[in-house]
Amino acid sequence: MNLYMNLAELLGARIEQGLYRPGERLPSVRALSLEHGVSLSTVQQAYRQLEEAGLVSPRPKSGYFVAEHLSMPALPAISRPAQRPVDISQWEQVLELVRANPRPDVIQLGRGMPDIESPTLKPLLRSLAQLSRRLDMPGLYYDNIHGNLGLREQIARLALDSGCTLAAGDLVVTTGCHEALSTSIRAVCEPGDIVAVDSPSFHGAMQTLKGFGMKALEIPTDPVTGISLEALELALEQWPIKLIQITPNCNNPLGYIMPEARKKALLTLAQRYDVAIIEDDVYGDLAYTYPRPRTLKSFDEDGRVLLCSSFSKTLAPGLRVGWVAPGRYLERVLHMKYISTGSTACQPQLAIADFIAQGHYQPHLRRVRAQYQRARDQMSDWVTRYFPPGTRASRPQGGFMLWVELPERFDTLRLNRALLEQGVQIAVGSIFSASGKYRHCLRMNFAARATPQIEAAVRKVGETACRLLAQDDNGG
Amino acid sequence: MNLYMNLAELLGARIEQGLYRPGERLPSVRALSLEHGVSLSTVQQAYRQLEEAGLVSPRPKSGYFVAEHLSMPALPAISRPAQRPVDISQWEQVLELVRANPRPDVIQLGRGMPDIESPTLKPLLRSLAQLSRRLDMPGLYYDNIHGNLGLREQIARLALDSGCTLAAGDLVVTTGCHEALSTSIRAVCEPGDIVAVDSPSFHGAMQTLKGFGMKALEIPTDPVTGISLEALELALEQWPIKLIQITPNCNNPLGYIMPEARKKALLTLAQRYDVAIIEDDVYGDLAYTYPRPRTLKSFDEDGRVLLCSSFSKTLAPGLRVGWVAPGRYLERVLHMKYISTGSTACQPQLAIADFIAQGHYQPHLRRVRAQYQRARDQMSDWVTRYFPPGTRASRPQGGFMLWVELPERFDTLRLNRALLEQGVQIAVGSIFSASGKYRHCLRMNFAARATPQIEAAVRKVGETACRLLAQDDNGG
Repeated sequence: MNLYMNLAELLGARIEQGLYRPGERLPSVRALSLEHGVSLSTVQQAYRQLEEAGLVSPRPKSGYFVAEHLSMPALPAISRPAQRPVDISQWEQVLELVRANPRPDVIQLGRGMPDIESPTLKPLLRSLAQLSRRLDMPGLYYDNIHGNLGLREQIARLALDSGCTLAAGDLVVTTGCHEALSTSIRAVCEPGDIVAVDSPSFHGAMQTLKGFGMKALEIPTDPVTGISLEALELALEQWPIKLIQITPNCNNPLGYIMPEARKKALLTLAQRYDVAIIEDDVYGDLAYTYPRPRTLKSFDEDGRVLLCSSFSKTLAPGLRVGWVAPGRYLERVLHMKYISTGSTACQPQLAIADFIAQGHYQPHLRRVRAQYQRARDQMSDWVTRYFPPGTRASRPQGGFMLWVELPERFDTLRLNRALLEQGVQIAVGSIFSASGKYRHCLRMNFAARATPQIEAAVRKVGETACRLLAQDDNGG
Repeated sequence: MNLYMNLAELLGARIEQGLYRPGERLPSVRALSLEHGVSLSTVQQAYRQLEEAGLVSPRPKSGYFVAEHLSMPALPAISRPAQRPVDISQWEQVLELVRANPRPDVIQLGRGMPDIESPTLKPLLRSLAQLSRRLDMPGLYYDNIHGNLGLREQIARLALDSGCTLAAGDLVVTTGCHEALSTSIRAVCEPGDIVAVDSPSFHGAMQTLKGFGMKALEIPTDPVTGISLEALELALEQWPIKLIQITPNCNNPLGYIMPEARKKALLTLAQRYDVAIIEDDVYGDLAYTYPRPRTLKSFDEDGRVLLCSSFSKTLAPGLRVGWVAPGRYLERVLHMKYISTGSTACQPQLAIADFIAQGHYQPHLRRVRAQYQRARDQMSDWVTRYFPPGTRASRPQGGFMLWVELPERFDTLRLNRALLEQGVQIAVGSIFSASGKYRHCLRMNFAARATPQIEAAVRKVGETACRLLAQDDNGG
């Protein structure tokens, strides 16, 4: 990375962490130049980048100041799910979400779709096109069951950023993170086993548990620090838990990054009770802070963590390229991968390997991370403005998902039906719970650039919620 | 299809079925012109195509004659597997096969790889390249969980050729036939259930049964007419069978096409004992006869057949595009598909839909079918020439796989180890049995054009087998 980008990320992280407050004056160009041993123009470039990202604003003759924050809703409280293993429900609601055909007249705020219109993705399309023109047609062959070696080498290299030392042989390429999760779950568990999950939790992973006949034990989760280790320990004491399934970095749907000390403590717990951990890191590379947060896997000493990820959120979901580093479960995961899909489509693997090898991945990440961070602030502001008083919302530290909590009695299934007529859809909260909790919550995607259309859509969500609440109050 | 191609296929089928014998004189150009109501030049074109396919040879002033057959080994006897449900083994041998990295110094006769160098595949590569250049980037989006609608419409249209009336909504696109099989198995069965399979049987399907904890009951199978209905009925009487898993068209590994009357009788049995059928039709479009054989699904009246297929054998395996028509199990299959991979890579789906819609699929099939049929005869001839006396071999009616049976005491695992040093690999027979039977059998791929290199490789297999047998005879 360039010097100025390094510096911009560092300053951005300090602002994000509250080291400099909104409206506060930032160090002068000269001071930073001395502090970091870089040229004046490097500092100026860094400040210009932060200015573009909306984090700082220059004032003539006074220097740079932290941008005034947009307004922000209060955080949700820690979750309080039922503390016993349950059979997972909600498949019908999930099916409704994933079955939806893209309709040009509907703004879909519900799905986990990144912004794929960034110009930094162009080299990927070029690679795809070039592969199709090659006479040896590398995209048409059966792949080795591990996945393309070149791609696995690139993934292993990237993993260093999250503190992980992996070799290509430790990795299995999968058809999206979905297959990484499902092969991992099947590698560790038998039907009937109990799996502890953060709550709210990614609906796809929970539906996989359901499909394989496992029970979920939802653990209270804090919207800033993640799964409650105290509650988890109690649960481990009380139930024969086989596996912990968790998204510690840029959690879906809450957006938190679990602090490092808590990650280590979680691993100690897993060791003490001898349970495996499936770590979903699919949003990890989209953390707004630099360097990106470490994975649980990076602290794992005895191969009990199965690290699952993909390029679906960082590049594009239609590529369906994910991976898993299954630790001691490698052989089992290979078997499950073989029986699930045999191997993964070749051409997307080759194109991504090419894209990373040519140095396009990090610049792309930098751009979308900055965009998502700005969009988060904008979306939070709209929620404050348009949603019913008392609405709470998450404060994501990465990714592009906002979790919104409406008054307890509210029903987002009803809201979504009312919204469909108006051409907007959200993800209802109940699919993020094994037992259908969080009916009063919803998840919105803020990956798309903040256009007046998007603002109008969010406004419709908020105003329709207000209207439905008013109807209820009038006994309507 | 053109008139002359139609005629060529018809004549080819008659020759194949033995209506005209080797060396026999074929009807004159004039007679065929009258019989089929086509021009003389159309008949001449048809004969030229048959000549190119090696099926007929012209004799000056005497007309066309059926080509003298190459020599052919005797057929294997009907299989006699253990007639009780067994836990499936052989994963280590399968893993060895699928883990192998392509090595330029090894001729891989073991894998299910079609010939992807046919010029008739070029338009598919063009479609892939064009998709990558489109500004709206359709290949990058999340797909609907059913799969791309345009592709499903094309698949439904093609299904008419096998006697099936399907709508796009009856189909689910999968990541290869592998995912079609595994979602189908999981949709019908629970762990511990008994599944009846033809024997020898596709190792991938059996490893999937193993992975999900089911037991396989191997049914005796005839190398010409397929699974023994008599033995199957006895088994249905005796065991609580939940599912029949079968490949009736261009069977893998035996290559037979089950006669229509037996297909209907099989379905009647399934109805009487109320069991589901998973029909693997992945080689069905590669039948050498025209029109292609009907599927079991085409006789299915109450939705108990789950038809699984893919483009891996007809186009290219690296695309990883398959599908399933799950009948009454549609909702369960959708759930299993969602938890397995979420959705299938978009770009290959779009390119294939394009390829079929533009009329490239049938011409491609015609070309490779004729090539595979010639290659089958050539490969059978080599087996007669180079393999130990008493070797038996299948007589495939479609596809590109030959099943070879060596003397009972022979061990093909040992053969394969000896072959690796010589740069050749075959698929060992034991992976086609749940219980490790068929150690004396092997499967060879004849998709590649018959070059001196391929002949040398087949010769090495035969001669190494002779050498090992002689060693055994000498007590070595």
